[in-house]
Amino acid sequence: MIDHRVNGFRVGGIAAGIKPNEKRDLGLIFSDAPASVAGVFTCNQIQAAPVVLDRDRISSGVSQAVIVNSGIANCCTGERGMRDAVAMTRMTAENLGLNEDKVLVASTGVIGAWLPMKKIQTAIPRLVGGVRPEGFVDFAEAIMTTDTVPKLVTRRGVLNGIPFTVTGAAKGAGMIHPNMATMLAFICTDVGATAGELEWVLKTGVERSLNRITIDGDTSTNDTTLLLANGRSGSTLRTIKDKDFFQETVHEVMEALARQLVKDGEGATKLVTITVKGARSQQSAHTVADTVAKSALVKTALFGEDANWGRIVAAVGRAGVPIEPDRIKVFFDGVLVFAKGGGVDGLNENLINKVLKQSEYAISIDLGMGTSEVTVITCDLSVEYVRINADYRT
Amino acid sequence: MIDHRVNGFRVGGIAAGIKPNEKRDLGLIFSDAPASVAGVFTCNQIQAAPVVLDRDRISSGVSQAVIVNSGIANCCTGERGMRDAVAMTRMTAENLGLNEDKVLVASTGVIGAWLPMKKIQTAIPRLVGGVRPEGFVDFAEAIMTTDTVPKLVTRRGVLNGIPFTVTGAAKGAGMIHPNMATMLAFICTDVGATAGELEWVLKTGVERSLNRITIDGDTSTNDTTLLLANGRSGSTLRTIKDKDFFQETVHEVMEALARQLVKDGEGATKLVTITVKGARSQQSAHTVADTVAKSALVKTALFGEDANWGRIVAAVGRAGVPIEPDRIKVFFDGVLVFAKGGGVDGLNENLINKVLKQSEYAISIDLGMGTSEVTVITCDLSVEYVRINADYRT
Repeated sequence: MIDHRVNGFRVGGIAAGIKPNEKRDLGLIFSDAPASVAGVFTCNQIQAAPVVLDRDRISSGVSQAVIVNSGIANCCTGERGMRDAVAMTRMTAENLGLNEDKVLVASTGVIGAWLPMKKIQTAIPRLVGGVRPEGFVDFAEAIMTTDTVPKLVTRRGVLNGIPFTVTGAAKGAGMIHPNMATMLAFICTDVGATAGELEWVLKTGVERSLNRITIDGDTSTNDTTLLLANGRSGSTLRTIKDKDFFQETVHEVMEALARQLVKDGEGATKLVTITVKGARSQQSAHTVADTVAKSALVKTALFGEDANWGRIVAAVGRAGVPIEPDRIKVFFDGVLVFAKGGGVDGLNENLINKVLKQSEYAISIDLGMGTSEVTVITCDLSVEYVRINADYRT
Repeated sequence: MIDHRVNGFRVGGIAAGIKPNEKRDLGLIFSDAPASVAGVFTCNQIQAAPVVLDRDRISSGVSQAVIVNSGIANCCTGERGMRDAVAMTRMTAENLGLNEDKVLVASTGVIGAWLPMKKIQTAIPRLVGGVRPEGFVDFAEAIMTTDTVPKLVTRRGVLNGIPFTVTGAAKGAGMIHPNMATMLAFICTDVGATAGELEWVLKTGVERSLNRITIDGDTSTNDTTLLLANGRSGSTLRTIKDKDFFQETVHEVMEALARQLVKDGEGATKLVTITVKGARSQQSAHTVADTVAKSALVKTALFGEDANWGRIVAAVGRAGVPIEPDRIKVFFDGVLVFAKGGGVDGLNENLINKVLKQSEYAISIDLGMGTSEVTVITCDLSVEYVRINADYRT
């Protein structure tokens, strides 16, 4: 049993009856002391009520609790949706003895449905009464929608001779299941840090992790990532070296969560990293990698275990980034398959088939134009993905 | 039996042994007289040898024959690929008694394989010997790859009291089958027109037809559309009104071909038009429509016959075009399902289900921001699509 506890955090998750199946659907993170907080939210212009509310509240830089429900996204719900989101935080605040503006909220699930506020009101006292340091697994379960496993990562380190912990919980592999959409991630640490420091760590971390994963290229209306730091370990960020180490630790947690999200992608049977190197800029490396990672043709080839470099090169060619076809090299787990504008002569098919049969491997694309490099993580597009997304609601 | 004949054009298609299955795979269009010509080619930076060659030759504005093979794309084939493309035109020219620079060439099929030039050399005299005015069906079959039906459209009109004809043949619903990729379209008319006039007609036509269809969002390395006009009907474009009428006729042919392409999209069971209106510009209308049309989640919902406006609205929100969620309206075949930021109360589910069970219907999205409107055509994403694209080559 992994120890996910973080000093000063008590956490929990219960079944409140929001989902029809008696599974956990209401979770709470509570910090004994006010915590510094930073957040990153969806870029979608259609934003759920809890996202709008959190964006506003987070500007104070301080928070002490996060209430999260799964089953209903509280999105496209108008004024009533906003009233419900505020009410969720108020009920939580009252039960915890806090001001409501110190409570954040997140929702994930069906778009366009109202939250069952009576059920939530009834459940919150029980939820608040049950939070405990060991509650992270219950919380991670309570935020799941179509996820098949809870996603939790803990890393520990030492700063100024004092041990500290970073624990992250996440759900919902991208916009896999549209109406049960949403990527949510909550990261708790007992390091002492300012909201400004957290913002930097979170934004650079998202860029390196959650923004580099692709399931189906869709973006949810509810995506939310929060980082809370309550300082209860006693360790603080005194030097640049401290900051770097703390940042690295948080990023490790975020990257591990990102991999778990893709691995649990709906219907996914393969986790494939796409590295684009030799690009003229980070931006162009990212654009090319994203185009390859999102291509339906590349993703069906991954599912079919097909060494189809033609699909990869065609995706590179339409990415909108200037390239020189003759300079491009494509590797499958280090095996060169494409160079000098064509397939490699005398390619060992057995070697390649062995690579493609693995559940995890790497595709590397060298553009031969510069020195920038970006890696994104993707999964295959399977028959099961279509089945799940077509059958949903019917 | 539809009469596809166009004055002065002789056409054919035979089995040359390029495909393994003895199906037709080599086609020829031949005009008795030099024809004005215009072309539009793939935007992909990875371009097959025939595309590079045609781009160059078409600058003269005159052509008299087009040789096309299916089965092998002659892409990513380096210098040898270019020599083979040139050789195909030379062999055709010799047999027709033309200069080789008056012959264009197109290929579609597997990327990265060499053309079997001996087989092609043997077949060309037979192909040239067999061209005839009635040969359009044979030609349309010869350019098929994963298409299940040949695609041919003919429209006739009268200019200056003289009848004229426009016949178009096309293949390959977008980049559906990556290694048998490619959209090819060839349009022949007996109107007299300059290359400059044809270029205008073709470019505006592509914008209204072939650029408005989506199968899986991928773009082939070989996409080619050619328009040839040999003037053999005797009708010419004397007035603005003549030009408009001719343009309209060619566009009708192109739009009908585009619909046939989507309808024959791999694994497609639905043809759905996505109209975005009330946009601030054509550009933004097109961007929003494209984003919705390409969304894997929207396309699986179409397959699942699910009135999932949440997926549509979420795609609108991430398209990168400024919107105001409260102004958006979404209709399924005229039935309002989303307005004022949420689902429509008291929606008649039976009515909607009836719409969704059709094999063709329209989704309309009114942004409420302006007066621009664009319609694109898409198909659903089915279990069969994944199966075909995963199993290919294995």
